[in-house]
Amino acid sequence: MHLIFRDGGIAIKPEQVFEKLMSLSKRKGFVFQSSEIYGGLNGCWDYGPLGVELLKNIKDSWWKAMTYRDDIEGLDASILMHPKVWEASGHVENFTDPMVDCKSCKARFRLDTLAEAMSEKKKEKTLEEFESAIEGKDSLRSAFESAKNSDKNKFFEAILENKELAAEFAQGLTCPTCGNKGTFTPPRNFNLMFRTFLGPVEQEGNVIYLRPETAQGIYVNFLNVQVASRQKLPFGIAQIGKAFRNEINTKYFLFRTREFEQMEMQYFVKPGSDTKWFEYWKERRMQWYIDLGMKASSLRFSDHAPNKLAHYAKAATDIEFEFPFGWGEMEGIHNRTDFDLSRHEQMSGKGLRYFDEESKEKFVPYIIETSAGASRSFMAFLMNALDEEIVNNETRTVLRLHPALAPVKAAVLPLVNKDGMPEIAEKIYHDLMKSYRVFYDDKGAVGRRYRRQDEAGTPYCITVDSQTLADDTVTIRERDSMEQERISISKTGSYLFDKIK
Amino acid sequence: MHLIFRDGGIAIKPEQVFEKLMSLSKRKGFVFQSSEIYGGLNGCWDYGPLGVELLKNIKDSWWKAMTYRDDIEGLDASILMHPKVWEASGHVENFTDPMVDCKSCKARFRLDTLAEAMSEKKKEKTLEEFESAIEGKDSLRSAFESAKNSDKNKFFEAILENKELAAEFAQGLTCPTCGNKGTFTPPRNFNLMFRTFLGPVEQEGNVIYLRPETAQGIYVNFLNVQVASRQKLPFGIAQIGKAFRNEINTKYFLFRTREFEQMEMQYFVKPGSDTKWFEYWKERRMQWYIDLGMKASSLRFSDHAPNKLAHYAKAATDIEFEFPFGWGEMEGIHNRTDFDLSRHEQMSGKGLRYFDEESKEKFVPYIIETSAGASRSFMAFLMNALDEEIVNNETRTVLRLHPALAPVKAAVLPLVNKDGMPEIAEKIYHDLMKSYRVFYDDKGAVGRRYRRQDEAGTPYCITVDSQTLADDTVTIRERDSMEQERISISKTGSYLFDKIK
Repeated sequence: MHLIFRDGGIAIKPEQVFEKLMSLSKRKGFVFQSSEIYGGLNGCWDYGPLGVELLKNIKDSWWKAMTYRDDIEGLDASILMHPKVWEASGHVENFTDPMVDCKSCKARFRLDTLAEAMSEKKKEKTLEEFESAIEGKDSLRSAFESAKNSDKNKFFEAILENKELAAEFAQGLTCPTCGNKGTFTPPRNFNLMFRTFLGPVEQEGNVIYLRPETAQGIYVNFLNVQVASRQKLPFGIAQIGKAFRNEINTKYFLFRTREFEQMEMQYFVKPGSDTKWFEYWKERRMQWYIDLGMKASSLRFSDHAPNKLAHYAKAATDIEFEFPFGWGEMEGIHNRTDFDLSRHEQMSGKGLRYFDEESKEKFVPYIIETSAGASRSFMAFLMNALDEEIVNNETRTVLRLHPALAPVKAAVLPLVNKDGMPEIAEKIYHDLMKSYRVFYDDKGAVGRRYRRQDEAGTPYCITVDSQTLADDTVTIRERDSMEQERISISKTGSYLFDKIK
Repeated sequence: MHLIFRDGGIAIKPEQVFEKLMSLSKRKGFVFQSSEIYGGLNGCWDYGPLGVELLKNIKDSWWKAMTYRDDIEGLDASILMHPKVWEASGHVENFTDPMVDCKSCKARFRLDTLAEAMSEKKKEKTLEEFESAIEGKDSLRSAFESAKNSDKNKFFEAILENKELAAEFAQGLTCPTCGNKGTFTPPRNFNLMFRTFLGPVEQEGNVIYLRPETAQGIYVNFLNVQVASRQKLPFGIAQIGKAFRNEINTKYFLFRTREFEQMEMQYFVKPGSDTKWFEYWKERRMQWYIDLGMKASSLRFSDHAPNKLAHYAKAATDIEFEFPFGWGEMEGIHNRTDFDLSRHEQMSGKGLRYFDEESKEKFVPYIIETSAGASRSFMAFLMNALDEEIVNNETRTVLRLHPALAPVKAAVLPLVNKDGMPEIAEKIYHDLMKSYRVFYDDKGAVGRRYRRQDEAGTPYCITVDSQTLADDTVTIRERDSMEQERISISKTGSYLFDKIK
């Protein structure tokens, strides 16, 4: 048994994994390109019959893990929110990327990504050239010197923060697409929020945004939820929903898209207990992925260095998965302090303080955030599950999805279309269908039928054969081991229940 | 026992029902105003802790009823789609409302709604006045005469279709807000789709829309789904998702909102069998509401008259619920013929035909659509359940929600905080929590605790009392009848399972 892109063996190359995954996704109905018949819409994807079930199972597992407990309440806030929300959160001002266009080939890039993508040697050289290019330009020189004094990692950031400096800097870069130098426009700050207008008049006062994250819907509802649910600190609010970012460069299939789904929980705690809860949620969230079948060796924490923390954060870590392109973030866990609620208090003029009955104090709680990407997790679970192995000199493609996540829980296969087998198989199928999504297949050789289910990630195949007619038993074949056992028809329901729960 | 707005008795007045429902919604955490601390966002609502569970249960029930069958596949298409989709569907051209502004008081109205809201007498008078106002204006007169010859119900529509006639007509109306006459601007066609831009350049070529319905996501994926799932006609594709309409006038709480959720299923059939399937789905969809506890007397079909059918429809009916403001649509069932797939074939140049293996023919299937509003159903289920009755001289507010829909399935209540009762109660609570959303409450008199659960729609209260200590039994109180029975602790899980499934 070989894992495609980690364990070597017959494993295919990393760059082929995306190709295999996208091809399997379309063929089996996990993911289609959005609006495919019109050439697609960049950064948007549709979940097909198997994909929608896998995504739903991931979301339901998260929802159950996060809200079937006495200290967390659910919420489903609207995607469209009052524009002041995004002023308070800082998104209107800061949720931007510096963007440059190549005047020669019209390609568009994020300037920060261009700078960071350079090798260390290239960086050194670019900076040297840059330094001599601004020789004699006094205001630029002094800005450059002060940027140089900042932390080495922050050097590029410091350059990009100064408008004139950034424009000059962009002029010295080579376009990765056409290879020309000095063809970039000065960088512009491009806000990643999609804008639209509420009501029929398209004027500034009516601008609203598609939310770029679900978190703010939780913050503005903090007191509404606390009062209605009569919760006391510490407690959390959980939400699953779509968010939108008008990314300049989308990439890696479902990894960076313009429309995506988040699973976020904001945990409100007493200041002083925040570090304890940050550690608690780090461990809990990592365990969730492992419990659902992700290999621990493909997971790691990536702590944000103190000088890399967002302005609102006291501590932050990412749960990363080893994608074929390298380690990538699936979930962020952040100690956001009292930043968010304080900002909304200031901006709205409404009190968002919690009254602590024990100490008789009123204060703004700290927030520990667990922010997971449903779409990214979906891709990670698929990649974690995708496997190829040689069985009887043939390649078997199998999705080793956890039974709780598998789109179809079982397939019912009558061995031959005679002797009343189809009737028995259909009865089993219809009985199981009352509780599970199951599949019926009586087409072709049973070996091929097994393979079709392996590719769909179906964990159990229930086969009706001639012995069934004699003793009311069926075989159950387990997907990963391909081992079969005989059980009584009457036990099929409870068998699945035990395996899936 | 009295139903609040239908059965009389102590019933409150219809106009009070909304007020009661909105107040209960906020207090118990079903629905909050979106961005409330910023004064709200018109036409958008947030679902609180109880609301999100009720909404999820409605959607899960629909999903199970619609996709746990061998002829229907699920889908989850993106909200952002290629703009050509909305040209093909006709939304860019036709999804508009004629809008007028009052120049005096700045109020804004839909002209068609203003016209239709008039009494018959007022209509007659307005038309008489209108006729004399256009005396001598020859082109308007002849357009007016031809409008007059059309069906009486279509008379206003015919007027509004003619731009000059509509402008003149608007001049003759009285503004319902300020009472002035002749103050309306000429009507403008206002497209109800929210527009935004894909990518950083805000120019016409980059316009995309927030989908105003989920159906088109299904049509453009028809062949993708059919091929991946190997389905044969007749078969359906089901989808739940958000849609957006930039309504000029939102109203009635969750009834007409700008952001809402749909539960749509498109059933693809062989032409000729469409009428049979239309009837099949009419009955099935009506039965779904009844099975989930809606009173048959609050439900009706409202068939669209042949001259009122949309341009794509051969037959259409609405499932209506009797809201406090009158009968209102919850779901539409439409025979859409081959209109949608043919349009997408033309516009995309891609074949969307089905190859029938039996007849060896290739053809465009007919579509029977069942399009339900999740948000509207949510409000209807709440209204259907909301009840007040006098019990021991006190008003009991109770939400008679079907156990499958109830946000919380059971509450566990230790009678007193001593003798080990809390420990037993907590154990029952944690055991049930593995499978259901349950609630623990040890605060206050048990009568008040029951009432809190009645208001939340919790169907079962499990009470631990002194007898529990003696014989390991608890009482289970049923919400609607308030009757109690004693059962063994070990049976509580299977008791709930039987009632809820």
